[in-house]
Amino acid sequence: MNIPSIFRKTDDPFEPGQGPRVVIVGGGFGGTNAARTLGRAGARVIIVDKNPYTSFQPLLYQVATGGLNPGDVTYRLRSFAARTPNCRFRRAKVTGVDFEGRRVECDNGGPIDYDYLIFAQGVGANYFGTPGAQEHAYTIYTRTDSVKTRDVILSNLEALDTNPQKNFDVIVVGGGPTGVEMAGTLAEMKSVGIPAIFPDVAIDRVHVTLVEMAEHLLMPFDAKLRHYTRRQLQRRGVDVRTTSAIAEIREDSVLLKDGSTLPADLVIWAAGVGAHKDVEKWGVELGRGGRILVGPDLRVKGQDRVFAIGDGALIEDNPLPQLAQPAMQEGVWAAKQIINLEAGRRTEKFSYFDKGTMATIGRNAAVVQMARFHGLKIDFTGFIAWVAWVGLHLYFLLGGRNRLQSMINLAARYLTFSKQASGIIGDIVDERPAANSAEREESD
Amino acid sequence: MNIPSIFRKTDDPFEPGQGPRVVIVGGGFGGTNAARTLGRAGARVIIVDKNPYTSFQPLLYQVATGGLNPGDVTYRLRSFAARTPNCRFRRAKVTGVDFEGRRVECDNGGPIDYDYLIFAQGVGANYFGTPGAQEHAYTIYTRTDSVKTRDVILSNLEALDTNPQKNFDVIVVGGGPTGVEMAGTLAEMKSVGIPAIFPDVAIDRVHVTLVEMAEHLLMPFDAKLRHYTRRQLQRRGVDVRTTSAIAEIREDSVLLKDGSTLPADLVIWAAGVGAHKDVEKWGVELGRGGRILVGPDLRVKGQDRVFAIGDGALIEDNPLPQLAQPAMQEGVWAAKQIINLEAGRRTEKFSYFDKGTMATIGRNAAVVQMARFHGLKIDFTGFIAWVAWVGLHLYFLLGGRNRLQSMINLAARYLTFSKQASGIIGDIVDERPAANSAEREESD
Repeated sequence: MNIPSIFRKTDDPFEPGQGPRVVIVGGGFGGTNAARTLGRAGARVIIVDKNPYTSFQPLLYQVATGGLNPGDVTYRLRSFAARTPNCRFRRAKVTGVDFEGRRVECDNGGPIDYDYLIFAQGVGANYFGTPGAQEHAYTIYTRTDSVKTRDVILSNLEALDTNPQKNFDVIVVGGGPTGVEMAGTLAEMKSVGIPAIFPDVAIDRVHVTLVEMAEHLLMPFDAKLRHYTRRQLQRRGVDVRTTSAIAEIREDSVLLKDGSTLPADLVIWAAGVGAHKDVEKWGVELGRGGRILVGPDLRVKGQDRVFAIGDGALIEDNPLPQLAQPAMQEGVWAAKQIINLEAGRRTEKFSYFDKGTMATIGRNAAVVQMARFHGLKIDFTGFIAWVAWVGLHLYFLLGGRNRLQSMINLAARYLTFSKQASGIIGDIVDERPAANSAEREESD
Repeated sequence: MNIPSIFRKTDDPFEPGQGPRVVIVGGGFGGTNAARTLGRAGARVIIVDKNPYTSFQPLLYQVATGGLNPGDVTYRLRSFAARTPNCRFRRAKVTGVDFEGRRVECDNGGPIDYDYLIFAQGVGANYFGTPGAQEHAYTIYTRTDSVKTRDVILSNLEALDTNPQKNFDVIVVGGGPTGVEMAGTLAEMKSVGIPAIFPDVAIDRVHVTLVEMAEHLLMPFDAKLRHYTRRQLQRRGVDVRTTSAIAEIREDSVLLKDGSTLPADLVIWAAGVGAHKDVEKWGVELGRGGRILVGPDLRVKGQDRVFAIGDGALIEDNPLPQLAQPAMQEGVWAAKQIINLEAGRRTEKFSYFDKGTMATIGRNAAVVQMARFHGLKIDFTGFIAWVAWVGLHLYFLLGGRNRLQSMINLAARYLTFSKQASGIIGDIVDERPAANSAEREESD
């Protein structure tokens, strides 16, 4: 097997049937980056994903709060495959792997032979066994979950309008970036959005509480940024409760470990991710949190031709945060190791280049902590951090069209927020009608 | 009751409680135009609609074929109300009307008193009693229906990819503008979209048939335009069957009245609209097609303070086409008659100003027939007509943001269609996952 164009960086047409077959399970940040690198090098890539799209996960909280349309942050994997040389897409769930026969079994279409296999399946929500969480909590880790959460929020706001007795109590569980972003956006929705869109609803009928087990919000950030974040959230009306552990989530309330109870119309679980539930069927060694154990070169323990990357992979002795950046870098790295192996070279140890971390609290407020650079520590907060956050997130949105649209949506949201009220839930539509469409002729 | 600002054309703040209460049932083209005119004049307007959004119906076929996101052609009625002076929105279905007591009963929130009432409820699909149509046909008259149709199309295309035995037969019923636009877009999807997005699917496995009972397509258009339309559709691969009446729609086929059978994986019913099914509960006199009978001033027969407008209203002796233009003009007209009545003046007879009709067949092809102007007949076809169609539709899209987004989407679709394949089903995502989200963690 030879790979003629493997070291060219161009998109030159590749002669079919020349490169090795690489099957990539999952089309998220890790999978698409691996596919692009391999396809351009001349390998024949097949992405297998049970969803026909990939989501830009870091902005799903915007979908949940109605700031962006689902289509703004999702991108069809078939379009990705069409734009990527030597790349195909199969919409299927992987049901099993025959490592001996180098073959992946799917629930849609026949089995797929591979020369190399990359697991990039991602993760699911992890409730850490909290009673009632699975049944009553909502999440924003996937597009589907975000749309569901949004519908609960919109339904509750509608109910406030017609039922003057009702309040709307939202509890966000988890003080990491996802929880902070969600709570901050909800607070903004309350103070700016509701007066415009629901002029008859008093804003003190909406309560946003952020519950965090640890002593501080945003634990990986510096103390200065953590304090800034807490102050900003409180100024925006969020009831911030640190060192508060959840004992149980009930249908209409949350029981804390100190015995107190908080009323809850909606509990949003942002406290952690765990294993993808299909992983245990694949017969690979799992580490902490159900992540697939890989060696320093990202190969799965005991496998020569199988890699695992992203949130669902765990590098032994070097666990990395479950974020987009590590996943993307690992995707490119795994692809390069396959190129090395095909060229008869050894694989190399992956090292993560931490570009820094950021989280947004709301309009005009974010925290950015850059990586240390020659001993220099750089961090900043406020409007500048917010602009940096917006810019970076838009830059990384997959696909030029989505990027442009989201930029317009976010800009429109920012510019028209209080004036025209087309912000918060402006272009969002309630998608629940899909369930009973016979009921729903439109007027006109 | 006096209306201080009634003849001002400004958005001057209105002193609450001064104008008459006008309840508008339905927030489509007719209802929103009436609301805007009345709200600006100083009346207190309440729009009641069971959906929280309004759809731009003329572009729903683009949603059904994946060219536009649902959010591109829908607009939240609460945002409309927030931007319109003296306007409120109630998400509810009207369950009854007490004309004596001037009061509307709703299924959500208390009854609403009115001084004037405008029915703008719109229409539903009309199957004209065709056996099997209700059960097996899909429509594109509402946002929800378009999303469902889109999901059937995408699922069938996915199935072509993994099952080489399968074909995809689509039958569009009805040769009016909706049917022509749908068939033309499907044909384009077949010839341009599939080779890019499903490179392993031969396009001759997809068949698009347009079935029309009458002798010609686009009956209200001139013969020249009708012939152009048929030629264009045929050139794009549509099997056009005029003088073909449907006898029955079955699960996987369509039986024609001549006894022949056409296989059908999907039947799209675009053959006509009928009464909104709630109308008969309201106790008003109905005319042909279940439309509410109104006099020349658009007042409901036998009512002094009740108007009916749009597709769901029928002017006695002067039936108008069920299109956006008449609905919008009637909305403004009904509002002006209420202003007349409040000022102690008589109502005036509505007259429709026909600005012309247009239909698009696909990229670079459309037909436009302008109204006769001083005896001059103007019509045009082809690229110019298509550009006119795009421009006019975008201009009328409700709300600046949606307009801009749709323009970008349509432009991107046009410019990148064959090259990058981000067109046809580019930014569309399969929304079926919402049904079983427990199944669906995303990868990353």
